[in-house]
Amino acid sequence: MKILVDAMGGDNAPKEIVKGCVEAVKSAEDFEILLLGDKQQIEDLLTTYRYSGNRISIRHTTEVITNNEAPTKAIKEKKDSSIVVGFQMLKEKLGDVFISAGSTGALMTGALFLLGRIRGVNRPALTPVVPSLSGGTVIADAGMNTTCKPINYMQFALMGKTYIEMVLGKNNPRIGLVNVGSEEEKGLPIIKQVNTLLKESNFNFIGNIEGNDIATGKVDVAVCDGFTGNVMLKMMEGSGKYMSNGLKKVFTANIVSKLAYMMLKSNFEVFKKSLDPNEFGGTPILGVNGIVYKCHGSCNFKAIKNTVLNSIELAKKNFIDRIREEIKELEVNNIGDVEI
Amino acid sequence: MKILVDAMGGDNAPKEIVKGCVEAVKSAEDFEILLLGDKQQIEDLLTTYRYSGNRISIRHTTEVITNNEAPTKAIKEKKDSSIVVGFQMLKEKLGDVFISAGSTGALMTGALFLLGRIRGVNRPALTPVVPSLSGGTVIADAGMNTTCKPINYMQFALMGKTYIEMVLGKNNPRIGLVNVGSEEEKGLPIIKQVNTLLKESNFNFIGNIEGNDIATGKVDVAVCDGFTGNVMLKMMEGSGKYMSNGLKKVFTANIVSKLAYMMLKSNFEVFKKSLDPNEFGGTPILGVNGIVYKCHGSCNFKAIKNTVLNSIELAKKNFIDRIREEIKELEVNNIGDVEI
Repeated sequence: MKILVDAMGGDNAPKEIVKGCVEAVKSAEDFEILLLGDKQQIEDLLTTYRYSGNRISIRHTTEVITNNEAPTKAIKEKKDSSIVVGFQMLKEKLGDVFISAGSTGALMTGALFLLGRIRGVNRPALTPVVPSLSGGTVIADAGMNTTCKPINYMQFALMGKTYIEMVLGKNNPRIGLVNVGSEEEKGLPIIKQVNTLLKESNFNFIGNIEGNDIATGKVDVAVCDGFTGNVMLKMMEGSGKYMSNGLKKVFTANIVSKLAYMMLKSNFEVFKKSLDPNEFGGTPILGVNGIVYKCHGSCNFKAIKNTVLNSIELAKKNFIDRIREEIKELEVNNIGDVEI
Repeated sequence: MKILVDAMGGDNAPKEIVKGCVEAVKSAEDFEILLLGDKQQIEDLLTTYRYSGNRISIRHTTEVITNNEAPTKAIKEKKDSSIVVGFQMLKEKLGDVFISAGSTGALMTGALFLLGRIRGVNRPALTPVVPSLSGGTVIADAGMNTTCKPINYMQFALMGKTYIEMVLGKNNPRIGLVNVGSEEEKGLPIIKQVNTLLKESNFNFIGNIEGNDIATGKVDVAVCDGFTGNVMLKMMEGSGKYMSNGLKKVFTANIVSKLAYMMLKSNFEVFKKSLDPNEFGGTPILGVNGIVYKCHGSCNFKAIKNTVLNSIELAKKNFIDRIREEIKELEVNNIGDVEI
C-alpha cells in the first residue's frame, strides 16, 4: 500500500509533514509513503529525523499552491504542484490515498475535477470527526456545500455512516438531522423533507437533533448542510479555546494552583488529548474516486501520523468500493428518485 | 418601576422563579415585582423564602401554557394564562418588563401578536449573550427567524449593538457577519449581499467571521440567521457539557486529584461562574413594543434574579425608545430601501 503525502501544504510544512510520515512508518508496517514536494528540503528533513529506510520515497515537485490563490485557476495552471501531482497519481492508481494540509479550496476543487465524483454521488462532503461523549461524532457536511438538496443530505448520511463504521468501528451508527429544536414540525422546509426521507430509509435515524447533541454524543453522524456544519465545527473550536484559556488562568493563578496542576497533570493530559484535533487526524473528502484527506493548515506531525494510519484502514477495507455499492443501493431503495 | 414575572413558566417553576424574585428585591432598590401565577403557591413560597415586604405582589392567573401546546392556539385561547396576562399588562403599561421561563414558542408568538413589532422592525430577534474572551458576545438572531432577508440581518446588527451597549456597557461594539471562511467571496449569496450593506453602514463592522470568532471574542455582536444562531448556541452548550464531564473525571480520578481540586476550587468556581448561563440571565426578544425576556426552561433562581437586574437597566435607559429612533435612522440612511 502506498500513501501519497503532500509535503508542502500547511503552515508547518514541510517540517511537521515529514516528521509525521517518519513517525507513521515507525509505528506500523505494511505500507510505504511517497512524499510530494521539494526533494532537497524533504531529504534534509529525513536526515534531521534520522530516517534512512526505504519505506519513504520522494516525488520532486516544483510548484506549491498557496491559500491565497483562486483554487480552480491554481489547479488548472500549477501542473507540477504537490497537490495536482498527488491527485493525478491517485487517479492513475500510483497510490492508494492522498493526504494534504494545503489549501482547502484547492483540495476540494482538485478532488472534484481531477478525481471526479463516485458514480451516483451528487455532492461530495467534508466529514470531520469531532470529540463527543460517545467517542467521536462525524459532521457531514462540514463545508463543501453551503446549500443542499434532499438527496445530498441522504448521501451525507450514507457516507458519514460508512466512514465512522470503518474508522471508529461503530456498529449501526446513530444518525441525526441538525435542526432548531428536535420537534418534527420545527425548522426549515428542507429539513422537514429530509426528516421524512430519513425516517423511510434503512438508516438508524434517531430524528432531528440540536447543536448540543453532537458533543454530548447523542449521535454518531450529524447530518447538515455545509454552512451549518462548518459554523458548528468552528464554534466547537472557539469554545475549546475559551475553555483552555480559562483553565490556564485557574492552573496558574498562584503557587498553590500550580502545585495542584502538577498533581492533576497526568490525568489532565489524557483529557486534553481527547480534545486535540491532531489526535483525530485529518478530515476526509468523501464521495470522490479516491481516498483523500485534508489536514488542518496548522496541524502538527501527530495529525499527519494519525491521518496516515486512519487512511490505511479505509484503503484496506476498500472504502471507495463500499461507497459505490451503497450509493447504488440507496438509489435502488427509491430515495434517489425523490424530487430533488 | 414594575417588573412582571411569570411564576409558572419553566421546569423549576414556581419555586426557583419566586426565589429569584426574592433575591432580586433584596439585592437592589427602586423597583417592584408583580408575580403572575397561582396565588396560593406563590404565597406559600414567599413564606418559605421569608419575604414579607411590599415590593413583591401577586396577580392570580388560572391557566398555564405548556411547552407541548401549539403556541398560536395557546396564546389565543388561554386568556388567563400567566404568559398572556403578562403580555397584556406590559402592553397596557401596567409593567415595564415581562420575564418568563415558559414556552419559547408561546413567548415569541405572544411578543409578536400581543405586543407587536416596533414600527420599522421587519423581524424581531432572540439575542442571547454567550461567554466570550471579550466578556460576552451577543448572537443575533439565535432562533426567531430560520430564514432571513438582508434587512433582517441589518436590523439584528442594530438591535444587538444597542443591547450590548446598554447591558454590558460596551462602546462602539464590533459587529461580525457569520460565514464559512472570513473571505468576502466565500459563502452564501445572501451573506455577500449583507456584507456589502454592513460595509456601507455606520456600524463598526469588522467583516465576515467564523464560528470560532464568537467564543474567542473577536466580535461583540455576531449577526446571523436564526437557524445558524440557534445551532451555534446549542453547540456551545454541548461543548460545555463535554468539557465539564471531562474535567469532572480529571478532578475525581483518585485521592490526589480530589485534593488538587480542593486546592483549585475557589479559582475554578470563578471560571465555572463565567460559563454558567444562569449568570448571564435570560435572553431578550428584541424588536417588539416592550422589554421581554425569555429565561431558559431549566434556569434557576440566579437566572431570574440576574434577568430582573438586567431588565431594569434596559428599562431605565429607555431601550425601546432608543431602538425606535435607531431603526428610523437606519431607514433614513437608505438601508431600509435596498431590495429585500
